[in-house]
Amino acid sequence: MTNKIDADLYKLTRPTLLLDEQQARANVHRMVRQAEQADVVFRPHFKTHQSAALGALFRTAEVQKITVSSLYMARYFADHGWDDITVALPLNLAALDEVQALAKRIRLGVLVESPTAVSALAKQITQPLTVWLEADVGYRRTGIWYENVDDYVKLCAQITAVPHLSLGGLLTHAGHSYGARSVAEITAVHEQSVTRLAHLQSQLAEAGYPALPLSVGDTPTCSVVPPEKFTAVDEIRPGNFIFYDLMMTQIGACLSEQIAVAVACPLIAKYPARGELIVHGGAVHFGKERLVTAEGETVYGYATAVNEGTFTGVDQRLTLVGLSQEHGTVRVSDPALMDALQLGDFVPFLPVHSCLTADLFDHYTTLGHGRVYTRLPRQF
Amino acid sequence: MTNKIDADLYKLTRPTLLLDEQQARANVHRMVRQAEQADVVFRPHFKTHQSAALGALFRTAEVQKITVSSLYMARYFADHGWDDITVALPLNLAALDEVQALAKRIRLGVLVESPTAVSALAKQITQPLTVWLEADVGYRRTGIWYENVDDYVKLCAQITAVPHLSLGGLLTHAGHSYGARSVAEITAVHEQSVTRLAHLQSQLAEAGYPALPLSVGDTPTCSVVPPEKFTAVDEIRPGNFIFYDLMMTQIGACLSEQIAVAVACPLIAKYPARGELIVHGGAVHFGKERLVTAEGETVYGYATAVNEGTFTGVDQRLTLVGLSQEHGTVRVSDPALMDALQLGDFVPFLPVHSCLTADLFDHYTTLGHGRVYTRLPRQF
Repeated sequence: MTNKIDADLYKLTRPTLLLDEQQARANVHRMVRQAEQADVVFRPHFKTHQSAALGALFRTAEVQKITVSSLYMARYFADHGWDDITVALPLNLAALDEVQALAKRIRLGVLVESPTAVSALAKQITQPLTVWLEADVGYRRTGIWYENVDDYVKLCAQITAVPHLSLGGLLTHAGHSYGARSVAEITAVHEQSVTRLAHLQSQLAEAGYPALPLSVGDTPTCSVVPPEKFTAVDEIRPGNFIFYDLMMTQIGACLSEQIAVAVACPLIAKYPARGELIVHGGAVHFGKERLVTAEGETVYGYATAVNEGTFTGVDQRLTLVGLSQEHGTVRVSDPALMDALQLGDFVPFLPVHSCLTADLFDHYTTLGHGRVYTRLPRQF
Repeated sequence: MTNKIDADLYKLTRPTLLLDEQQARANVHRMVRQAEQADVVFRPHFKTHQSAALGALFRTAEVQKITVSSLYMARYFADHGWDDITVALPLNLAALDEVQALAKRIRLGVLVESPTAVSALAKQITQPLTVWLEADVGYRRTGIWYENVDDYVKLCAQITAVPHLSLGGLLTHAGHSYGARSVAEITAVHEQSVTRLAHLQSQLAEAGYPALPLSVGDTPTCSVVPPEKFTAVDEIRPGNFIFYDLMMTQIGACLSEQIAVAVACPLIAKYPARGELIVHGGAVHFGKERLVTAEGETVYGYATAVNEGTFTGVDQRLTLVGLSQEHGTVRVSDPALMDALQLGDFVPFLPVHSCLTADLFDHYTTLGHGRVYTRLPRQF
C-alpha cells in the first residue's frame, strides 16, 4: 500500500480536495438508518459539504428537509430544488429582505431568541415563516438558557400572536459534545441535553404551548448514541458526519476509516536529515484547526492512502505538524517512506476539521472516477 | 466614536471584508521608501492581497517585480500585466507544463533546492527561466541549510550548465522573525540571517559564482529594521505589510492603527448576563489563526472603529474570544457598549492573520467609497 495518489489519473497539478464518494454515501446511509431507527425527522446540516451534487446523495436516501448556516447558503440550495430549509444561526436582522424573498419560495425556518427579532419579523415579513426558539442546554454559545422559562413563554406568546409566523419548536446544538473523548462522554452530553430540553418542553406545555417539537443535532451524539435514547427527540440535524474528520475520530464519533475527504498535496521538498517533507498544502488548503494529541503534540493532519477506491484511515507515519500559508511541514517517522516518496508525488492528508477544509475549495474531485462536484460559490 | 459601521452606506447584509485603502496605500508607500533608502529591489509578495486592483497601488509606486506563492497566482497576475514574477515556493515538479507556459509569457523566477528539480527543469523547460536557490538561514522550513556549501556549489554548477536557466541568486525567508516580540528581537533575527547569507555568498564567490544577489523578505524585518542594515541585501519581498494584522502588532512590526483590513460582522445575539455578544463571523470568515496574549488568553480578533475614513486600531472592549464555523463569540468589557449595540448592527473586527482572512473572501469593500475590488478566483 502506498500513500501516493495517481496524479495522472486525476490530472493533479496543485493541492486538490479529494472525495471518497463511496464512504460519504455509506456515512449518509448509516445516519439515515439511525434516524429511521430513532423515528426522528432527519434534517441534515449542509454547511459541511455546501454542494448541490452532494445534496443529491441525501435525496436518493429520501431526505427532504435540510439545515444550513446562512441565508446565502439557503438561497443556493433553494436554487437547487430544496424547499424546506432551516437556517440554524440566530436571525440576522440586517438581512430581512433575503428572509422575505426566501420565505416566498420555500418553507423556511429561522432561529430567534429575543423579542426584538420577533418584532422585526412581525413587522417586515409578510410570508409564512417557521420560527424556532434556540435553546441553550449547556453549550453557552447561542440560545436562551434552558432555565429561563419565562423568556420562552413570552416569545411563544409573541410568535403565536402573529398570523404568518408559526412556532417551529425548540432547537439546540449540543456543541459541548466536541469536548467529549469517548462514547460514554458523548452519551452523557446527549442525555443531559435531552433531559433539559424535555423538561423545558413540559414546562411550556403547562404554560399553554403543548408538544413543541425538539430538534437536536451535533454529529458526535447522532453518530454513537443508540436510537432508543432519541425517544423524546423529534428531529436531528447533524452535518459533519458525511465526511467526518480527525477531530471526530479523536472525540470517538467515528473511525478514521470513515473519513471521506482528504487534500492531495504535491511533495515539493525533502529533508531526510530532519525527517521532514514539505508539501504544497498550507493554511489556505487545510484551515488552521489543530488537534492536540494525548502526548501534547499539535497536529494539522495525517496522511492516508487509497485502497480499492476508498481512503484507508490515518497513517501516522506522515504527520502534518506545521502549516504556513501555502507550505505544510510533514514529519516522516518511516525512513523507507522518505526514500520512496519523490518530488512531485501527491500524498493525501486527512483534515482535522472537514467542514473548514472543504470550505477552502471550490470543488471536490472524486476518488476512482475523478468526477468534479462544485460547491457553493464564494460570494461573501 | 462608535464601533458600528454604517450598514446602509455599504449595503451590508452579511460578513464583509472591509479595506481601508487609505491605510493600505500608506503602508505600501512606507515600504517603497524603506526599499529606496535601503537601495534594494522591492519585489513585494502578492499572496497577501491576491488582487489585481490592489496590485495597481504598487504600480503607481513604480513597483515592477512581484513575488507570489503559487503558479496559479503567477498566472493571474501575468494576466493582469505583471511580467516579472518570482514563485516563492519550492518548485512543484507536477506542474512543469505551467512553468513552461508562464516562462513563455513573462520573466519567471522559481525556487529550487535539489539536483532533481534542476534536472527536471533542464529536461522539460525550453524557455529562459531564472532559478533561485532557496537558503535556510534558521527558519528550518524550506531551503538548503546555509552551512551545506557543497550542496549550493553543485546546484550552481548544474544550473549554469543549462543554457536557458539563469542563476537568480540566494533567496531566504526568515520566518522565525514571527517569533519575535520586539524591534530588538526582529533586528537580531535579521542580522543573523543576513550575516549567514552574506557569508554563504562569499563562499560561493570563492567557488566561482561571484556576487550572487541576495533576496530576503519577511514583513517584520522589512518594517522595522533600519535601511542601513540592508547593505548586503539586493532585494526584499515582504507581503503582509500592505494590510498588517494583530499578529504583526504583537510582534512589534506595526501599530494596530496601521491595520488596513477588517471583517464587518452583523450582531446576531446579545447575552448581557454573560457579557458576550454573538456575531455572524466565524472560522470561515477569519480563519482559525489565534493570538495568545501575555495573560495567556486566546484571541481571534479585536473590534475596531472607523474615524475619518480609516480604522482606528484595536478596541479591546470587544474581543473575539471564540470561533465556530459561522459564529463568533465576542467578550464585551464595557456594559455601555453592550447597551449601545443592537441586533443587526455591523461591527468591524481586525484579523489575527490578514493573509488568511483575506483569502477567505472573494472581494474587498473599501471604506468610504464602498468600491469593490475582486481577488484571485478560487480554483484549486
